[in-house]
Amino acid sequence: MVTLRKQYAVVRPVYSEDRLAEDHEKVNRLRKTIPDHLREYLNWDLKRAKNAALSLLPVIGWMKIYRVREWLLGDVVSGISTGLVAIMQGLAFSLMASLPPSYGLYTAFFPMLIYFFLGTSRHISVGAFPVLSLMVGAVVTRLVPEVGPPANITSFEGLTQDQQRVLVASSVTFLMGIFQLGMGVLQVGFIVVYLSDTLVSGFTTAAAVHILVSQLKFVLGLTIPGISGPLSVIYTLEKVFVQITSTNICDLVMSIVIMVVVFIVKELNDKYKAKLPVPIPIEVVMTVIACGVSYGFNFKTNYDVDVVGKMVSGYESPVAPDMEIFKESAVEAFPVAIVGFAVAFSVAKVYAIKHDYTIDGNQELIAFGVSNIFGASFRSFAASTALSRTAVQESSGGKTQIAGLLSAMMAMIVTVALGFLLEPLPTSVLGALVIVNLKGMLMQCREIPYLWRRDKPDCVVWVATFVGATLLGLDLGLAVGIGVNLLTVVFRTQFPRCSVLANIPGTDLYKDRKDYTHISEPKGVLIFRIPSPIFFANIDFFREKLVEAIGFNPLRVLRKRNKALRKIKKLLQKKEGDVTETTDESGMDVEALDQPSDLSGLPFRMDWRAGFPGNISVPRVNLHSLILDFSAVSFLDISAMKGLKTALKELIRVDVDVYIVSCDACILEKLHSCAFFDEEILSSMFFPTLHDAMLHVQDQKKDKSRGSALTESKL
Amino acid sequence: MVTLRKQYAVVRPVYSEDRLAEDHEKVNRLRKTIPDHLREYLNWDLKRAKNAALSLLPVIGWMKIYRVREWLLGDVVSGISTGLVAIMQGLAFSLMASLPPSYGLYTAFFPMLIYFFLGTSRHISVGAFPVLSLMVGAVVTRLVPEVGPPANITSFEGLTQDQQRVLVASSVTFLMGIFQLGMGVLQVGFIVVYLSDTLVSGFTTAAAVHILVSQLKFVLGLTIPGISGPLSVIYTLEKVFVQITSTNICDLVMSIVIMVVVFIVKELNDKYKAKLPVPIPIEVVMTVIACGVSYGFNFKTNYDVDVVGKMVSGYESPVAPDMEIFKESAVEAFPVAIVGFAVAFSVAKVYAIKHDYTIDGNQELIAFGVSNIFGASFRSFAASTALSRTAVQESSGGKTQIAGLLSAMMAMIVTVALGFLLEPLPTSVLGALVIVNLKGMLMQCREIPYLWRRDKPDCVVWVATFVGATLLGLDLGLAVGIGVNLLTVVFRTQFPRCSVLANIPGTDLYKDRKDYTHISEPKGVLIFRIPSPIFFANIDFFREKLVEAIGFNPLRVLRKRNKALRKIKKLLQKKEGDVTETTDESGMDVEALDQPSDLSGLPFRMDWRAGFPGNISVPRVNLHSLILDFSAVSFLDISAMKGLKTALKELIRVDVDVYIVSCDACILEKLHSCAFFDEEILSSMFFPTLHDAMLHVQDQKKDKSRGSALTESKL
Repeated sequence: MVTLRKQYAVVRPVYSEDRLAEDHEKVNRLRKTIPDHLREYLNWDLKRAKNAALSLLPVIGWMKIYRVREWLLGDVVSGISTGLVAIMQGLAFSLMASLPPSYGLYTAFFPMLIYFFLGTSRHISVGAFPVLSLMVGAVVTRLVPEVGPPANITSFEGLTQDQQRVLVASSVTFLMGIFQLGMGVLQVGFIVVYLSDTLVSGFTTAAAVHILVSQLKFVLGLTIPGISGPLSVIYTLEKVFVQITSTNICDLVMSIVIMVVVFIVKELNDKYKAKLPVPIPIEVVMTVIACGVSYGFNFKTNYDVDVVGKMVSGYESPVAPDMEIFKESAVEAFPVAIVGFAVAFSVAKVYAIKHDYTIDGNQELIAFGVSNIFGASFRSFAASTALSRTAVQESSGGKTQIAGLLSAMMAMIVTVALGFLLEPLPTSVLGALVIVNLKGMLMQCREIPYLWRRDKPDCVVWVATFVGATLLGLDLGLAVGIGVNLLTVVFRTQFPRCSVLANIPGTDLYKDRKDYTHISEPKGVLIFRIPSPIFFANIDFFREKLVEAIGFNPLRVLRKRNKALRKIKKLLQKKEGDVTETTDESGMDVEALDQPSDLSGLPFRMDWRAGFPGNISVPRVNLHSLILDFSAVSFLDISAMKGLKTALKELIRVDVDVYIVSCDACILEKLHSCAFFDEEILSSMFFPTLHDAMLHVQDQKKDKSRGSALTESKL
Repeated sequence: MVTLRKQYAVVRPVYSEDRLAEDHEKVNRLRKTIPDHLREYLNWDLKRAKNAALSLLPVIGWMKIYRVREWLLGDVVSGISTGLVAIMQGLAFSLMASLPPSYGLYTAFFPMLIYFFLGTSRHISVGAFPVLSLMVGAVVTRLVPEVGPPANITSFEGLTQDQQRVLVASSVTFLMGIFQLGMGVLQVGFIVVYLSDTLVSGFTTAAAVHILVSQLKFVLGLTIPGISGPLSVIYTLEKVFVQITSTNICDLVMSIVIMVVVFIVKELNDKYKAKLPVPIPIEVVMTVIACGVSYGFNFKTNYDVDVVGKMVSGYESPVAPDMEIFKESAVEAFPVAIVGFAVAFSVAKVYAIKHDYTIDGNQELIAFGVSNIFGASFRSFAASTALSRTAVQESSGGKTQIAGLLSAMMAMIVTVALGFLLEPLPTSVLGALVIVNLKGMLMQCREIPYLWRRDKPDCVVWVATFVGATLLGLDLGLAVGIGVNLLTVVFRTQFPRCSVLANIPGTDLYKDRKDYTHISEPKGVLIFRIPSPIFFANIDFFREKLVEAIGFNPLRVLRKRNKALRKIKKLLQKKEGDVTETTDESGMDVEALDQPSDLSGLPFRMDWRAGFPGNISVPRVNLHSLILDFSAVSFLDISAMKGLKTALKELIRVDVDVYIVSCDACILEKLHSCAFFDEEILSSMFFPTLHDAMLHVQDQKKDKSRGSALTESKL
């Protein structure tokens, strides 16, 4: 079926931007200034105050709409399942943080108590997160190494190694909480946008590598001190291979069995997701079996297997964070705060979109900040959320944080009463469970070829973040990743693909002249498209490309013209006397050559295109008009404005008319306010479309040729 | 005079991008891939090899065109004047680097020997640069402090403190040379574009503050150890004020006299620039007078004035750099290399434009790299160029580096033979001369109000760099400045000012609807302009703004529609049975709600705008078409593509037709290659102009209403 093509028919006057604004009564809008914004922000009324107070306690919002009949059952079921996972993960992740296992249970309990009241997400499961545990562990092993003396910190005196470590972990967590709270109060939650998906993917893959390496010693039953700092992965692997002969076979066999079983069951869970009412809790099952077997055969004494061992029963008194540790770990606590928040926020966002409610980044920062400060006071370590645990909480029917609260209660019960049941659990079992769960994170490296095909800079970000975080450690790696990520934005605009446009015959459309076979370029007019914002990093590049496109260096032409002009003037003055050729160049004022040609005092009209007598040579310029397409210029900075002004002046001084088209209204306003215009650069050079400018140029040209025809006929 | 307004008259078919490409035979250009570029780069022929060899020795190029008669005199005069300045600056700057004065003369000599052959700039004066001297000095005082033991470095054994310091300085310089050479070989000279003018201004102002503070002790005749690291400015000032009572009055008076005299004469030089044949060399005059007076009155013993003292006569044997110092100072040598090159390059560029020759950034890197490596082997320290010295060399008539070579010879003569003449020179005189020359650098802070009015982000960069470099030290400050500078680029595009456009009646032009009083918005069509590139940091912001502009959340509408559809289908199925209302929501598969509405199996045509019976409520959507103006979207990254695809799908699924106009050809190509299009998102949605899309929409709308009118008439 052929549809009739509609005609595009327009008849209207040719507009310049000035004329358009005048004819159609452009409004002079007053932009809000920073004081205006501030005033608005500080202009509180009662209603806003009430809203603000409510937004600080989101629990009120969702408690009001809580549907007991529909939601409570789901919350209870979900709370119990999540609780089981949280207990096991708590034990495993505290080993990752180089802390005794019971502190992982603290982390599953205390932060949740606060988040229940302050958090805006109804689905995330607050508690330990492997990457954070590892980052805290790096500080812990740096300040309190396995072998050798701990760092020189006053309050370490009289404490056992484990107590010192707990003090370090809780101080780092406290500081992290302060950072998060501070960012929340300052409303800078938006900074997580700098952690792009690509960066997070590379970072978490590197974290998976770190986790894998850190768990090897448990799986193999080796005693290897925790190593932190750059290249720690390499050093740890080296130590593992050196000791590989002393592997505990019992640990290894048990780990392999568990890994294989869990892996297979998980795959089956995935495959029959639709048919199973609830996924098989294989990890809990395996843990219970391993506990039983270990207890029954007394693995600890019979096979020298490392077990969880004596758990602290009940809770310890609150602890004050240590200022000296703050000072030592400030640089490391900041990335921990950022990563912790970023992960929780991104997971929360996914479920918020799925279940159609809103989460507030700044309130989340406040919630996690207070949670971590509170938790740290009770010796728990860095809390965020673990993807896997949140998935359990949501998929098993959790509707609100009541589920989270219940899972925290389960952790409490284990801490207070049932801890002894976990005592015979071999640490290799925990290690094996951690490793088998890394599959998803490690599989992210399949993104590399995908990214490489689609978008090379993004691929570079992924690889740089991964390599940086793997080799330099997670904190430095994150900094490298963010730096590279920001650089890509600059880089994408740094070498813009400038192009020369030409008219598609019979239309008002202009396209890259290389892209079309039948395309008409008007003589003496060049249409140059700038395909990106202009700023300090690309203004020089753009000027180079412009000179390349127009085919001559305007400054050089101007200088040659001015030199020729001087010679001509001298010739005219000395018409009667004998003309001695002086060494012109050295005696001449170089700066004056860059000024506009001074044509006054000449008895004739200068035509630079004509030939000159004798030793006077001036390069010919075949360009009379240049049209710059600014449609893609989304901003200009000071350097760009300066550079652009110079470039335009140079062109105008060699009698090339410059027009700028499709310039954004905001940029035009900015140019006006920045005194961009003067007697050479006029605001009448701006046109709304390319075709308007082109018609204007043709008109001008006709006038001029008519004018010169007149002059000629007069002679 | 009223010019007749030309008409803009166009009659052509309405084009979509696809149709335009088809009708006008768009060429499928093959873009060069990375292997292509590499092949081209590696494709050497004899001519290119010859050119490359020549470009490695630029001296051949300018020697060939050397005009002995015209240039030689200028070069000789300039060489002598520059030499005098170089000698004095050498002494002063070596004090800044915490080294004995004679090493400053080495720096004025050795690097120049190499630069003569390798450098592409004909006007810069190679040698010490105050900011570099200070940066080297920071490493020197860190590794070999005035009081207390030096760093634990093997080769320090058996050396005096001065010898240790010289070893540190020359090792840092060697490493800096390696960095520069490496960057030159890797052809990454372009990285200096990241040092924007604003950043350099803030950085050099901070450097001036550091220099001022470092010279106070000489001017006041105090003994204060060099302090390095963050907050060193504060600590040094504190020490100065603590000791202020022990000021040496003779030093102070002499310094003040010299500063006042030099300041006045310099102002006069500036004022009568045009009338004076050559500026009065007041600094040289004052140095000679001070030397004489100090010698005559024996200041050293009579007034306890610190003098330059015994100079090393002649040259010492070459020294090998120390690996341990490399390791200790690698982080600091890198910014030294960058700053040294950036300053020399920017100064060289100014004179290259003035005198119309080209300089090559990468060759300059190679030249400075080799110069510094060579110089460091002979115990000279970091060389770049000083603005003031280069100004002398150029203004006194220097045409080529022959002048530079002569000035180096003068430094050699002083080192070898005339050093003793400078021995009685008080160090306070050198300090006073350095301080009085800081005026220009310190005056740069007048840029702050200028920048604040013109461009706030640039102002933030200036202040951040200045504060960072002043308080944290020059190396860290530079890093902070670069980071903030890059962030501004992201920040400028992070919160784009999205706008809704409307038609200016009687034209094919579309402008922000808030900007014009008389403007027509077609019903049911929204034109949304995205005024910046889209990438990870602003895709979410842009989606929020889009939802705000269209006035409804498409995903929410889709879910409500799908729920309604289920209810309707259930009602239809159970038409005969009794309809029991089940708890729909909890039992429903949430994901299915986000899929396109499945309208199959319905016995009637669904009209979402009609009313529904009973408890079925669906939000009404009054929008039938959305036109996105992509003219300012200069790039898209992976995150943006994903986000855009989701946003478009959500809209298409609620029956909103989406059109994208003025999309850059490269972006369109990229979307094609990245599998952006599928059965929902079609490439036929792209139109070359807004008006084309608008005409198409009106056409579609007419067709549809005619179509539905037909359906209705059939019923």
